[in-house]
Amino acid sequence: MNLNVSQKLIRSHLVPGSFQTLQPGDEIGLSIDQTLTQDATGTLVMLELEAMSLARAKTEISVQYVDHNLIQEDYRNADDHLFLRSACQRFGLWYSRAGNGVSHPCHQENFGKPGKTLLGSDSHTPAAGSLGMLAIGAGGIEVALAIAGEPFFTRMPEVWGVKLTGQLPEWVSAKDIVLEMLRRHGVDGGVGRIIEYYGPGLEALSAMDRHVIANMGAELGATTTVFPSDEAVRRYLRAWQREADWIELLADPDANYDIRDEIDLGALEPLIAMPSSPDNVQPVREVAGQPIYQAYIGSSANPGYRDFAIAAEIVKGRVAHDRVSFDVNPTSRALLETLTRDGHIGSLLHAGARLHQAGCNGCIGMGQAPATHVLSLRTVPRNFPGRSGTKEDRVCLVSPETAAASALAGVITDPRTLGMPYPHVTDCDSPIVDRQLFVAPPDAQTASNVALEKGPNIASLPSFDPLPDSITGPVIVKVGDNLSTDEIMPAGARVLPFRSNIPRIAEFSFNAVEPTYVEQAKTVQGHLVVGGWNYGQGSSREHAALGPRFLGLRAVIAKGFARIHAQNLANFGVLPLVFVKPEDYERIEAGQTVRLDEVRRRLAEGSELHAEVDGGKLSFAVRHCLSPRQVEQVLKGGLINWMRDALAQRG
Amino acid sequence: MNLNVSQKLIRSHLVPGSFQTLQPGDEIGLSIDQTLTQDATGTLVMLELEAMSLARAKTEISVQYVDHNLIQEDYRNADDHLFLRSACQRFGLWYSRAGNGVSHPCHQENFGKPGKTLLGSDSHTPAAGSLGMLAIGAGGIEVALAIAGEPFFTRMPEVWGVKLTGQLPEWVSAKDIVLEMLRRHGVDGGVGRIIEYYGPGLEALSAMDRHVIANMGAELGATTTVFPSDEAVRRYLRAWQREADWIELLADPDANYDIRDEIDLGALEPLIAMPSSPDNVQPVREVAGQPIYQAYIGSSANPGYRDFAIAAEIVKGRVAHDRVSFDVNPTSRALLETLTRDGHIGSLLHAGARLHQAGCNGCIGMGQAPATHVLSLRTVPRNFPGRSGTKEDRVCLVSPETAAASALAGVITDPRTLGMPYPHVTDCDSPIVDRQLFVAPPDAQTASNVALEKGPNIASLPSFDPLPDSITGPVIVKVGDNLSTDEIMPAGARVLPFRSNIPRIAEFSFNAVEPTYVEQAKTVQGHLVVGGWNYGQGSSREHAALGPRFLGLRAVIAKGFARIHAQNLANFGVLPLVFVKPEDYERIEAGQTVRLDEVRRRLAEGSELHAEVDGGKLSFAVRHCLSPRQVEQVLKGGLINWMRDALAQRG
Repeated sequence: MNLNVSQKLIRSHLVPGSFQTLQPGDEIGLSIDQTLTQDATGTLVMLELEAMSLARAKTEISVQYVDHNLIQEDYRNADDHLFLRSACQRFGLWYSRAGNGVSHPCHQENFGKPGKTLLGSDSHTPAAGSLGMLAIGAGGIEVALAIAGEPFFTRMPEVWGVKLTGQLPEWVSAKDIVLEMLRRHGVDGGVGRIIEYYGPGLEALSAMDRHVIANMGAELGATTTVFPSDEAVRRYLRAWQREADWIELLADPDANYDIRDEIDLGALEPLIAMPSSPDNVQPVREVAGQPIYQAYIGSSANPGYRDFAIAAEIVKGRVAHDRVSFDVNPTSRALLETLTRDGHIGSLLHAGARLHQAGCNGCIGMGQAPATHVLSLRTVPRNFPGRSGTKEDRVCLVSPETAAASALAGVITDPRTLGMPYPHVTDCDSPIVDRQLFVAPPDAQTASNVALEKGPNIASLPSFDPLPDSITGPVIVKVGDNLSTDEIMPAGARVLPFRSNIPRIAEFSFNAVEPTYVEQAKTVQGHLVVGGWNYGQGSSREHAALGPRFLGLRAVIAKGFARIHAQNLANFGVLPLVFVKPEDYERIEAGQTVRLDEVRRRLAEGSELHAEVDGGKLSFAVRHCLSPRQVEQVLKGGLINWMRDALAQRG
Repeated sequence: MNLNVSQKLIRSHLVPGSFQTLQPGDEIGLSIDQTLTQDATGTLVMLELEAMSLARAKTEISVQYVDHNLIQEDYRNADDHLFLRSACQRFGLWYSRAGNGVSHPCHQENFGKPGKTLLGSDSHTPAAGSLGMLAIGAGGIEVALAIAGEPFFTRMPEVWGVKLTGQLPEWVSAKDIVLEMLRRHGVDGGVGRIIEYYGPGLEALSAMDRHVIANMGAELGATTTVFPSDEAVRRYLRAWQREADWIELLADPDANYDIRDEIDLGALEPLIAMPSSPDNVQPVREVAGQPIYQAYIGSSANPGYRDFAIAAEIVKGRVAHDRVSFDVNPTSRALLETLTRDGHIGSLLHAGARLHQAGCNGCIGMGQAPATHVLSLRTVPRNFPGRSGTKEDRVCLVSPETAAASALAGVITDPRTLGMPYPHVTDCDSPIVDRQLFVAPPDAQTASNVALEKGPNIASLPSFDPLPDSITGPVIVKVGDNLSTDEIMPAGARVLPFRSNIPRIAEFSFNAVEPTYVEQAKTVQGHLVVGGWNYGQGSSREHAALGPRFLGLRAVIAKGFARIHAQNLANFGVLPLVFVKPEDYERIEAGQTVRLDEVRRRLAEGSELHAEVDGGKLSFAVRHCLSPRQVEQVLKGGLINWMRDALAQRG
């Protein structure tokens, strides 16, 4: 055989009926061993499980994390936590209490297993590829189905082998590797691909370093990122007292890759993604000296012990510039405890750190919004405009080394110019483990008697009608390339509290792009949106499909879609369509009325539909890329309707 | 002599012209040595300093803290912090960076001095009475005047001597002492009084224990609370490397008190204030067993090392009940560092604590809002309904011992029933001190060149013209009795963000009472409001005077005023007038035009004015209750104009 790690993972999880040849583009069904949900997406997942009358989770492990909504400005977050806790008890999931930390590092520390599949309702789920898992981000509804035992269907991605050679120089770390990938390939470079790292450069990268790279594979648009399970993984699991969970999983010596790239780690230098895209990457030295007002350490993009410890060693005995808000966001309780024990938290505090609770926090705009128009250097994965909570933000993505050095100087600083010896910090081999704060599911008998605790802001899901045969409506919004789901449905403290209340959260749809969108949508019976390339990139949040769908969105016509968002649209009964000729994009404008006829028949019979604009002034062809199964689901009005019917049939 | 500590403090700060006899009720003027502002009130204070053209603070020490608005959900908090930092540099104040902690413990640690006066724009300013200071909370404008060197005028309070005897039993601490005071005397028991503690029971109470008691004197309505400066204070200052700041300040052996009370500490037991008033106090044992959903350690009411360390010792090696959100809010960076060094933070984290940044946080409803309708046990000073951020909250006030014990059990728990030996924890004699994070003011030359950094939501105060000699305008609003300042100017998340932007916040004036008020006010050159009894009751917020004044309010004619609002009106140049015959209230209607003539001469000469309605159709007499000093200030258009002229004259 000549299989790479990705192919081995896929092959061992293929469900009957899937293509066995693993040709890119083939639809494959994968059995799912583990799921991960977080609170921003999980409340909806739990409501979906309730709607399906699920008796008990069918996965090996399903874990519900509470990491996104930790501020609790009113009753809603706290009510949600109680709801999630009760739902975990009811459906047989693990519950990670608020304060335990970000799902991705917590999952890696406590549950991740080489050779397993993980489906997560969070776009950074691929971080678990660090352990030799096949970890994919998906919409909450797909995760709900996986929890109920359904396979996950997707198209076989290309496998992109990236060979790492050499060794990282001092002051350069894993973040710089993935920033180099973004510099080379851009935010859509990984679309339709699994990025698999291999080669001699791997040896010196710890499992947590790999997490950094796998996590931000999401920023390349990749389906996932995969690393082998080797001695570094074994060492990591041993440190977390789970060596028994280790298996070796390596690519065959003569493994094939669909595409190849190579990075000489020794040639890298500190990099920075300037505002406001993760691929706006340049060497730190080229922008050094610009004043900064925030330095931010944390997030699932730099969650490891090393990432905080090296920042602590850099600032030790010094003080952050008094202009700079130096925000430290521990990523897991266990790491916070360990960093506290080892004196690093003390060093950070003494240098002026504002120490926040373990969680996602400012990375997703939950607090720590920067001041207007000034630079904020962050170790987070994304710097899309406004994601920080400040509309006129200027967020840069950097390594912990660069963030810490810049915090001290008050200006963007290449850490190599600090004039101090490089503090060689490695991952911790004896972390404090505290699994007692992960609440295990009770036995089935006890579980069946648990009542769901629903606060006043947790509302039933609205029911959606089947797809009509004729779709007619105005194009309310036309956007350019790379529109992110942040722009379709913002996250942040103003919006996320309503995530379990669809009618209410829908009011925020497209606010940043077209302030009159909601108002316009309400005046018509149905409407469309037109997009450029990579429509719906970024976060996997389903509300970016659900909100507009609730307001009457029937179809999005784009040059191309980010995979997860296209799937989310279909899952909730919205047609994701692409222009057959991309140049037709130029011919259609917001305000024009589009008519798609005989939709049901055409969807059932083929992939092409005919769009007529303003009663025939203009017409063009569009097509869908839905599988027959997805067509069936869209016709029913989405997955919830489809699943309800399926469960009713199964009896 | 037979003076108590309060009288000694007052006598040493009396300005010329004050009554020297210290009879309760006499107006006294006090020179102010130190001021304290926090960010929620401080932005306006700094704008007032700007409007007064102050060159440089005239106090010995003025410190601006950033502790209230730390969440930063958008640009405004961060912009405010930068503004405050620049204003401190400009006007010669100390700036305590965000993350340094709550004003009251930080002030005690770094700046508080026995024998000094402190005026603070925060109602818990009296906490500094723990060090033998005379510390009083006041409105922002009064603190601005104090910074500019003006005395603080008030009426001489009664001095209430509370003798402490005996020693606290195990599991009972300072919080239980002040809860006992609230149980006995209620939330208005201290109005018009200074509470002064003395007696042999003091000896075993550390300076931080006394802080707990002095802080919550505010909940008794007291003007302030005073403790002597004795060996306990000396020990505290020595620990904080400031023994040179210590002086002894004791009551004379035969000191007189206007009122007396006595508490036998040995007879106390753990107490709890049940929802939703600080004086709804009963023994913990009587309500034990009720399920709780939050246990919250922190705030200026229990800020000390001991308060956290004892909670840590109680939960060490155990885990908070999985229903309970166990929130830990360090009160100062220095204490957080010290608790980290000593292992207590580790113990708290391992038991499930959610560790928040140092600051006020949930105590003032900034995050950590509890779930709906369920019990939250907190070591904070106040449990007014909705203050937590959850409208239907049920907050209880307890000691750290009771909070920690209840966190473990998941129900209200008398800590004496835990079945463990009482962990004897004392205050720390060797805290980590890090004053480098308090930014000192630059020299006067440098300061004068500092520009104020004003983000888009910070507007200079509008300038107000002097009172005209003839006031003519329509009565836009006529209201009944007991109109609250909430109805004149609402608070809440929609309004408060504009507190540094008077033109913007003015738009909310009288919204709830007369939706067309703002619109009407803008169409005329000046206007009046007519009120019933107790006009302007409730919150002391100055914006309820500032907003309408900005829109042209010249006079309010009412049957009677709430004291603070009348003062606020006068402070900003609005005439508070009362009907000489209350029945004239019935004769005047909204929409009618009122004319007050020869206003300046009549104010200067006496207290009565003549009001003519609609060109003479009706006329009646009104009068003011302003002191000669206040008349002078109103004539100038308010305190800011008056102070600006005074500063200019002084050169």
